Parts: sequence; C-alpha cells; structure tokens
Amino acid sequence: MQTEAITLIRKPIGALTPDMFEPVMQAVPELADGQVLLRVKLLSIDPYQRGLLDESPMTGAPVAVGAVMSGRGIGEVLQSRAPSWDVGDLALGEVGWREHSVVPVAGLQRIVKSPMPLSHNLGVLGFPAITAWLGLETIGFPTAGECVLVSSAAGAVGSAVGQIAKARGARVIGIAGGTRKLSLLRDTLGFDAAVDYRAERDLAAALKLVAPNGLDLYFDNVGEQMLDAAFSVLNNAGRVLLCGHIASYDDTFKADTGPRHYREIMNRRWRVQGFVVRDHMARFAEARKALVDLVESGRLQPVVTRIEGLRNAPVALCGLLNGHHVGKTFVELA
Amino acid sequence: MQTEAITLIRKPIGALTPDMFEPVMQAVPELADGQVLLRVKLLSIDPYQRGLLDESPMTGAPVAVGAVMSGRGIGEVLQSRAPSWDVGDLALGEVGWREHSVVPVAGLQRIVKSPMPLSHNLGVLGFPAITAWLGLETIGFPTAGECVLVSSAAGAVGSAVGQIAKARGARVIGIAGGTRKLSLLRDTLGFDAAVDYRAERDLAAALKLVAPNGLDLYFDNVGEQMLDAAFSVLNNAGRVLLCGHIASYDDTFKADTGPRHYREIMNRRWRVQGFVVRDHMARFAEARKALVDLVESGRLQPVVTRIEGLRNAPVALCGLLNGHHVGKTFVELA
Repeated sequence: MQTEAITLIRKPIGALTPDMFEPVMQAVPELADGQVLLRVKLLSIDPYQRGLLDESPMTGAPVAVGAVMSGRGIGEVLQSRAPSWDVGDLALGEVGWREHSVVPVAGLQRIVKSPMPLSHNLGVLGFPAITAWLGLETIGFPTAGECVLVSSAAGAVGSAVGQIAKARGARVIGIAGGTRKLSLLRDTLGFDAAVDYRAERDLAAALKLVAPNGLDLYFDNVGEQMLDAAFSVLNNAGRVLLCGHIASYDDTFKADTGPRHYREIMNRRWRVQGFVVRDHMARFAEARKALVDLVESGRLQPVVTRIEGLRNAPVALCGLLNGHHVGKTFVELA
Repeated sequence: MQTEAITLIRKPIGALTPDMFEPVMQAVPELADGQVLLRVKLLSIDPYQRGLLDESPMTGAPVAVGAVMSGRGIGEVLQSRAPSWDVGDLALGEVGWREHSVVPVAGLQRIVKSPMPLSHNLGVLGFPAITAWLGLETIGFPTAGECVLVSSAAGAVGSAVGQIAKARGARVIGIAGGTRKLSLLRDTLGFDAAVDYRAERDLAAALKLVAPNGLDLYFDNVGEQMLDAAFSVLNNAGRVLLCGHIASYDDTFKADTGPRHYREIMNRRWRVQGFVVRDHMARFAEARKALVDLVESGRLQPVVTRIEGLRNAPVALCGLLNGHHVGKTFVELA
C-alpha cells in the first residue's frame, strides 16, 4: 500500500517558506506487534514545529532533509496489532505529515468520541488551552481586578489565556496584528481591550493607554520588543510568564538580542518565570476537566483556522509562523 | 554647639573617590519637640549610598552638592524632647555623616542594650542579614541537598546568605575576589567551595568545576557578567534572586548592557525574581529573632570591617564599592 507524505527538501536559513517541502508517495510499512495503522484525519500545526528544522531543537528531534515532516495529529485506526485498540478507534499522537501512519500505540492518546468537534482535541481542549490553563494556574494566577496582558492573543494559546483570565475575574488586554484579530478579541472573545502591534509605532505608549493602572501579569508568547514594551507598563511585583518566543523562531543563529531589564527586575520586584507545559503532565487530566467546564459554560470559545488537504500543510505552518491565522491551526485531510 | 560633618563637594561621573567629600564644622540646631540629639557612635556604610549621589536614586533622596552625606547609624541620646526617649538610650536611624545629629524620633529604632557588640545591629542582626534571611525565606527557599551560589559572598549580605543557606542544609558556593576573601569563606564561614572571580579568566567554567551538578539557586548581589556566568550553570527550574547589582553602581548613564538570557529563562523554566527587603518590613521582627538564634548557636558568624573616625567615612564607602572590605563595613566615631 502506498500513501502520500510531505518531506523536507531544504533546511531554512531564516524564514521558512512552503517550497522547502515536497509531497512524495511512500510505501506503508507492515504492522508490527504493538502498532496500529492510522488514517490521518487532522494534523495539528504548531509553532514548535519551526524549531524541529533547527540543528538542535528545544523540543523534539530534528527533521533531516529528505525525511517526512514531524507533526502531531488525530487518526482513525484502520488496522491494529495492539490488544486494546480496535478498528475505528480515534487516536492522537505523533503521526507525521502523511495520509496513513503506522505508529506504536505507546505514544498514543485515546480520543473519547463526543458530540464536540474533533478539532477541539487539538485546540480548546488540547495542548494550547492546557498550556494556557496550567500556565495561569501554576505561575500566573491572575485574580479578580488584576490587569493581564497576553501577546499573540488571537492565537491558540493566547485566545485561551485571555478567556480563562477573564473567567477568573481579571481585566484582559490582548496584543495582536490587524483589524480582523482585534475585532475577534474585543467583539467575540470579550477582551477588555486590544492593541494592534502592527498599527502602533510606540507599543509601550499604546499599552499605557489601555492599561492606565499598569499590568499585574504579562503572559508572553512572543518575546523581544513585545516583552520590552510589556515590561515598561508592568507594576511593581508584577509577574511575567515566558511561554513562547515567536519573534525569534526564524532566527537561525540564535543571537539573543532580547530585552535588557535585569536591573529593573530587581528594582521593581518583578517575577519572570519560564513555563513549559510538558513539565506539568501530572495535571493534564485536571486541566482538561476544567477546560471542558469552561467550554460547556460558554466562557471559553474555540477559535480555529482550518486548512484542507495534506499538501497544504507547509502553507499552513508558514501562515501560522507569519501570523496569518487566528486560534488553533489544523489541516483536515480528505 | 558646633559639630563636624562630611559634605559632598562634587557629584561623581563614574567611579566615586574620597576627594568628592570634605569635612566641615556646622552648628547643631536647637531641639524641637519630638526630637533627640544623638552622639553618633557607629555609621553604617552601605552600597545603596552610592545611588544617593545619582539624580534619581532607586532608594532614598538624592544628596545635593554642598549637603551633608546621608547615612544610617547608631547614636546615644544626649538630649531629648521626646517623651519615651531618655538620655543614654541607643537609637538606630538616619543620622547622616556627622558627629552629632538632631533627628525626629519617629524614624528611630530603639537598640536594646545587650552583651552583643553594638555593630551586630548593623550587620549580623541588621539590614544585611535580615535581607539575606528574608530573601531566602520568601523567594530562595534553599532546601537540603540543593546547591546555592551567592555573589559578593564575603560581603555583609553574601556572608549571611551563605551561612543561612548552609544552616538550611544546602551546599553553598561563594564568589568573591582575592585569596583573603576566599580563605574567609572556606576556612572560617564553612562554605563548601569558593571561586575567585579576579583570578578566573572563564568564570562560567570555574563555576562548572565547583558545581558539577549545577546550581539550584543563585542569590545575585552583582549582576552583569556574574549573572551571565551563573545562568550558564543554573539547573532547569532553577531560581535567581536579584538582590543587588554592584557591577553597575558606578555606571552613571545606566545603559543596561546586562545579561540576555530571556529565551533560556523560558526553555529552562527558570524563575528570576527581584527582591527589595523593605517590602517585607512586617516580617523584620521574625527575621531578627531567627538571626539571634543563628548567631547564638554559632551558625551565623559576624564578619565586619571596622574603620575609625568620621573623616574616614568617604574612604570607607569607596573601599566598600571597590570590593576592598569583608562583611559589614562601619565607621566607629571617636
């Protein structure tokens, strides 16, 4: 049996472009014990995948030139040589950018069938929202009346951060690029204010206008200049949760020219803390339960960008990295 | 009545030198209600005093050219127009660099007479040790088996940090400059290891040798390159307590060229937090009680540099800033 897959044909130096990938036909290997054959239904498109193209990714193994691109997704079991997995079961795990994938069941998470859209498992009930919930629960803990800023606010993590912080009673400000995203934040998701970083020449001044009493928490998904601007309006004893640094993903040489506020961290008693969600796997079930409650009560609305067809996965990833999407980006296979 | 005082005659641009101060004779003002006349016995010499010479100090009011230098000290009451203060009482507070000082009692702390040396109230039972104890209690919390690094380790705060962390069961490494200080740390104060930053060409490599399993906590009194070096050996989920930045006190223009590890804070899940002891005044009495226990049980040894004579206060401050002293620096008046 043959299946289509997307391989990397060239490593990016700087910005990633779709022409660095190419579709190929490959033979599907025979099933070994403990494996299942999945028909891939959804591919999750995530910022960490840019890092897999570097020599030494922070997360996961590097993807070599000529290899199939790595990626997580949801598939339906077509054949099984694992006792507890049956044909028709749904599984989430590392499937790669391919239409059919043979994977060991050890790394798979079972998807319980429910009336909710399957893509919820990648977004509003999946890693991005779990990241948001656990980041706020373990480090950020915004309280009623506090002012919370989140960057990449229209993204999968950011849109969840803002809504969860709202649900905890905080005043929430989002940074995003473009009027479509700003409208999403303010009109659909209930953010108290939103700032368009593309339209503002002085981001710090723009933040000061919408946060006249200063920020208590900044949930950072971007780094660099955006982090600088947030520091400039952070209250004494404010917290900064460092969750992502989209600003630098394309920076091949990793010259860290980032913010320079160490003296101010001391003088202003700030707490700056890194957060990596996989450190908190013991609490994933608790997080998911809380997220189901938030979704069912309407306090956490899903935001998605759905792209059709395996061959569009490279375009989907580049679009995500260039800020063209809102919410959780995923590819739906035919 | 006339008294001698030390005035500022020139503001430093860059390094402070003793010739920027000058002794003068001044009239002692008449006592008003609520004031006492103190004969100053000890002057506390502290790093924050360098900041008072800047235009906008982080702590305290700037000292103008021609004014008497500000400074805390301990004095004996010679005259009193405050009901609860009697001749012979001992008081700690802002007295300035003068032999006799008229001060409102509102800002004074009463010194309980005890068999302990009076200078303990400035060092091992005073602000520096309270800073060390509360910094470790509220942010650092080193536990048994953890590895703790402290910079400016032979200083008033650093020597207390190391000894208190040892008392909590941690393995303690100090950074200091010169063989005399290293010997103090290792042979007298019981540090597990010490690194001479003046002798090492590669501080990060030197730290790696003495902390083969990495650091769990870095108590930073210096900033800049020393902070960089500490980050390079900080374990995942490590903590950095930013308490001082001696490295930059003479940097008039405050160009913050500091460390650039924001990405690593995220990737390594570090917590970097500023600490200012005066935020924690509600716990000073508790801290002092704990410090008395530590001193009386021999687990916290006082380290002091005693300098004689009011006219040597400028030399004392410059010596402190240049790293010539160990422990708590104070001036004893004739």
